[in-house]
Amino acid sequence: MDKVVIYDTTLRDGAQAEGISFSVTDKVKIAEKLDDLGVLYIEGGWPGSNPKDREFFELFKNKKLKSAKLAAFSSTRRANVKVEEDENLKELLESQTPAVTIFGKTWDLHVTDVLKTSLEENLAMIYDTIAFFKAHKKEVFFDAEHFFDGYKNNPEYAIKTILKAEEAKADCIVLCDTNGGCLTDEVCAIIREVKKHVKTPLGFHTHNDLGLAVANSVAAVKEGCRHIQGTFNGIGERCGNADLCTIIGILQTKMNLKAIPEKNLNKLMETSYFISEISNTTVLDNAAFVGHSAFAHKGGVHIDAMIKNPKAYEHMDPKLVGNHSRFLTSELAGKMPILIKAQKMNVTLDKKSPEAKKLLEELQKKEHEGYQFEAADASFELFIKRFLSKYPPFFTLEGFKVSTEKRFDGKIFAEASVRLSVNGEKRFQASEGDGPVDALDKALRQALTKFYSCLTEMRLTDYKVRVLDAQEATAAKVRVLIESQDDTDSWTTVGVHENIIEASWEALIDSIEYKLLKEQKK
Amino acid sequence: MDKVVIYDTTLRDGAQAEGISFSVTDKVKIAEKLDDLGVLYIEGGWPGSNPKDREFFELFKNKKLKSAKLAAFSSTRRANVKVEEDENLKELLESQTPAVTIFGKTWDLHVTDVLKTSLEENLAMIYDTIAFFKAHKKEVFFDAEHFFDGYKNNPEYAIKTILKAEEAKADCIVLCDTNGGCLTDEVCAIIREVKKHVKTPLGFHTHNDLGLAVANSVAAVKEGCRHIQGTFNGIGERCGNADLCTIIGILQTKMNLKAIPEKNLNKLMETSYFISEISNTTVLDNAAFVGHSAFAHKGGVHIDAMIKNPKAYEHMDPKLVGNHSRFLTSELAGKMPILIKAQKMNVTLDKKSPEAKKLLEELQKKEHEGYQFEAADASFELFIKRFLSKYPPFFTLEGFKVSTEKRFDGKIFAEASVRLSVNGEKRFQASEGDGPVDALDKALRQALTKFYSCLTEMRLTDYKVRVLDAQEATAAKVRVLIESQDDTDSWTTVGVHENIIEASWEALIDSIEYKLLKEQKK
Repeated sequence: MDKVVIYDTTLRDGAQAEGISFSVTDKVKIAEKLDDLGVLYIEGGWPGSNPKDREFFELFKNKKLKSAKLAAFSSTRRANVKVEEDENLKELLESQTPAVTIFGKTWDLHVTDVLKTSLEENLAMIYDTIAFFKAHKKEVFFDAEHFFDGYKNNPEYAIKTILKAEEAKADCIVLCDTNGGCLTDEVCAIIREVKKHVKTPLGFHTHNDLGLAVANSVAAVKEGCRHIQGTFNGIGERCGNADLCTIIGILQTKMNLKAIPEKNLNKLMETSYFISEISNTTVLDNAAFVGHSAFAHKGGVHIDAMIKNPKAYEHMDPKLVGNHSRFLTSELAGKMPILIKAQKMNVTLDKKSPEAKKLLEELQKKEHEGYQFEAADASFELFIKRFLSKYPPFFTLEGFKVSTEKRFDGKIFAEASVRLSVNGEKRFQASEGDGPVDALDKALRQALTKFYSCLTEMRLTDYKVRVLDAQEATAAKVRVLIESQDDTDSWTTVGVHENIIEASWEALIDSIEYKLLKEQKK
Repeated sequence: MDKVVIYDTTLRDGAQAEGISFSVTDKVKIAEKLDDLGVLYIEGGWPGSNPKDREFFELFKNKKLKSAKLAAFSSTRRANVKVEEDENLKELLESQTPAVTIFGKTWDLHVTDVLKTSLEENLAMIYDTIAFFKAHKKEVFFDAEHFFDGYKNNPEYAIKTILKAEEAKADCIVLCDTNGGCLTDEVCAIIREVKKHVKTPLGFHTHNDLGLAVANSVAAVKEGCRHIQGTFNGIGERCGNADLCTIIGILQTKMNLKAIPEKNLNKLMETSYFISEISNTTVLDNAAFVGHSAFAHKGGVHIDAMIKNPKAYEHMDPKLVGNHSRFLTSELAGKMPILIKAQKMNVTLDKKSPEAKKLLEELQKKEHEGYQFEAADASFELFIKRFLSKYPPFFTLEGFKVSTEKRFDGKIFAEASVRLSVNGEKRFQASEGDGPVDALDKALRQALTKFYSCLTEMRLTDYKVRVLDAQEATAAKVRVLIESQDDTDSWTTVGVHENIIEASWEALIDSIEYKLLKEQKK
């Protein structure tokens, strides 16, 4: 089976999308998830451009990925600066990644109008930078920025730039449609021309400004490119990057090419949702392969035909990518994925036991109510343990009250009080906060710390809110995700309710109980 | 300029999408908007399948469109039934549309497994149905359902079905990839084969299950198809239909083909948003051509280059399709976009006046605090008008209080009270709600309706929350966007605060003041 190298740039180019802001912890989680899926290269960031990316690479000096290699990104050296003296490139070397990706100009307009240097100097910049990293034994990918626009404008010069990269022994030359404005047949024709001049393996990187990013990436593979760059869920600047979920789906199910290990293909959907939760974005219901509606059937004629023969209105078996068929008029949901997840956390459940059946029903009910356990493993674990009565309650809640007041002078106050008992001992605790949830969190933890001192070790690190059925506006359900961490671990919990305070409360409680359970195990 | 006929099926195939439910009024509004844009054919529905679609066609018997032609949709006659006696086809004739679209089976598997009839009878069904409508002087399009899968399975039979359509004098044979599972090169190869057998003009219809619907439609045009079916914003069953916004954008700006009148191209974005509003869906921020972020630049390097030369990171001038460039970092937001927006709302500001300078500073401060006016035009307008003292306050807030309580029995209560005065008259109003914001909204509106009865006409239609600096977790700032609408209009407002209640309050107040200002203008 012929292979295609998947090079993920969710953490670098994906982070350029409007509304995306990854913390270092977010980035680590995503990298580990991509590694689990079997993505070969993970571009972690541009260490020269911001301290967060530096911190990310610093962290990975003492951390191992299973099979993926990390890549760090930077531009070629600055004009008229010695390569050894370029601060950006020093940072890049400091990152200690096995691979580096250097982007350089191939469109003459960019050289003269943006870099404001000579065409000759740009060629030297490409050569020097790549040669420098090859001398340091790095695997070097050359991102030929704007290659297609450059080729259209000045083919001779565009080819010269990549020949320089070849001369400097780049391991792969990645042809980029940076503005995403190329039609599929243009991409094919230009790749064919390039192949007449260059022997170095070719890669492809594109953006979705014409809605053609996936199509053009697939076409590039057909033309012989075996290194494809993109982002999960297609996030990225403007219209986004090429969506790797879709590309992996197509390569693997339609073209008999290996992009990730075959046995991991059924993790595709789960990976997509995990990354979208971390990004605080939404996987489109109608996303190819992984969308919630991708195999959902509404038309009466279609449902009727599907029952007669599933091939009638589905291009493939959705289970291959971890998805499942749904008939929108009926209540059908897959039970296997849930059982598999339970097994992963060492909860042995006989598939046929009445207990398992009941648990699955409860879970489906929860999911139907809006709970999304993909990104909230801690809540999922607690849910199963509670159901199987695997732990006694750490405390009993007797009530809480939260209020926000805006006074005549415009000042705002938020306060909360919590009433609970631990082994029969009652506590009533009040606290102020920046907002209602903050006040509630403080009151709850102050009330419990007396009994469970380990709670001082943990803190909340992220808080995300999503409105589930937006058309109901302020009376809609909201889903709250809370991320917590202590010195050794981080975990995410979920709450769903019409009332945002109650949804947050649910997630807070789970977050604390998860920590207490962890301590108990020690 | 060569023409491509755009055949819109938003109202029929688009309505198959999960979550879409058009009223007859919705359908009429969308048809008129598409007519305004210059779309040539509008498929209104399947009159045989539901009374709503019948009502739609009934309405149009006394209603004229400017240039678009209506089409009604149905299957071929039933097996072993005389064409004149088929109820479905009677309904179709009754619709009195100039065009009819007949879908028929071309995949032998569907004939035997789904229709459960003979391959011969299916050919007769195709012939009889088309001939019947041609005898009634209709323009007849034949949708060759599953043509590509059919061709792959049994090319000889698939070709026979469309030759039958040709023999019956169909005006156009529309090759459909109904399951959306074909790769671009397969589509091209099969169309080339078809052209060897058929002289009737060809059309193309596809779905987006591989994320290739736009690419395959464009490829079909390159192969000579001059009738392209799709939906606006790509809505449709499973992964949706081919997105006509993107296809029109590509044909017209990249391929020098005429899909709609050139002068209407700059209405593309507005049409997309209008249809999404009516459908109660969202135009993706990163949608090609029409998305809010489609020409938004975030990377420092990119913004720097864009200022030097706009061609650097944009594949076209966004104004062509009614969109515009944006620079996302507030420091670099530039003053021009803000001034331009002010001008649009008829606020004349001398660029060099101290007033304009102060306003811009205030705006940048607001953006820095987390306000995002791009998506909240109503708040933006109010901000400018308040700054220029263009309107007196409609009411004076003296305070509010919101609380959520969870009692010992687990029940949750949310209530709010609002204290305000209008022209010196004081009001104190309390209300319960599903959550704190819902309670606050209700109390506020109940307090004001006595003075401003027009407030009963408006309602909140969407509520969005985003945590701005997630790492601060529950003490982070949140941004709330509220969307409201009345019979004629929809508007969005924004609020930002550490306390989600106060952020929601700001957005609620703006939403109400915007409505009151609108009424004042009348």
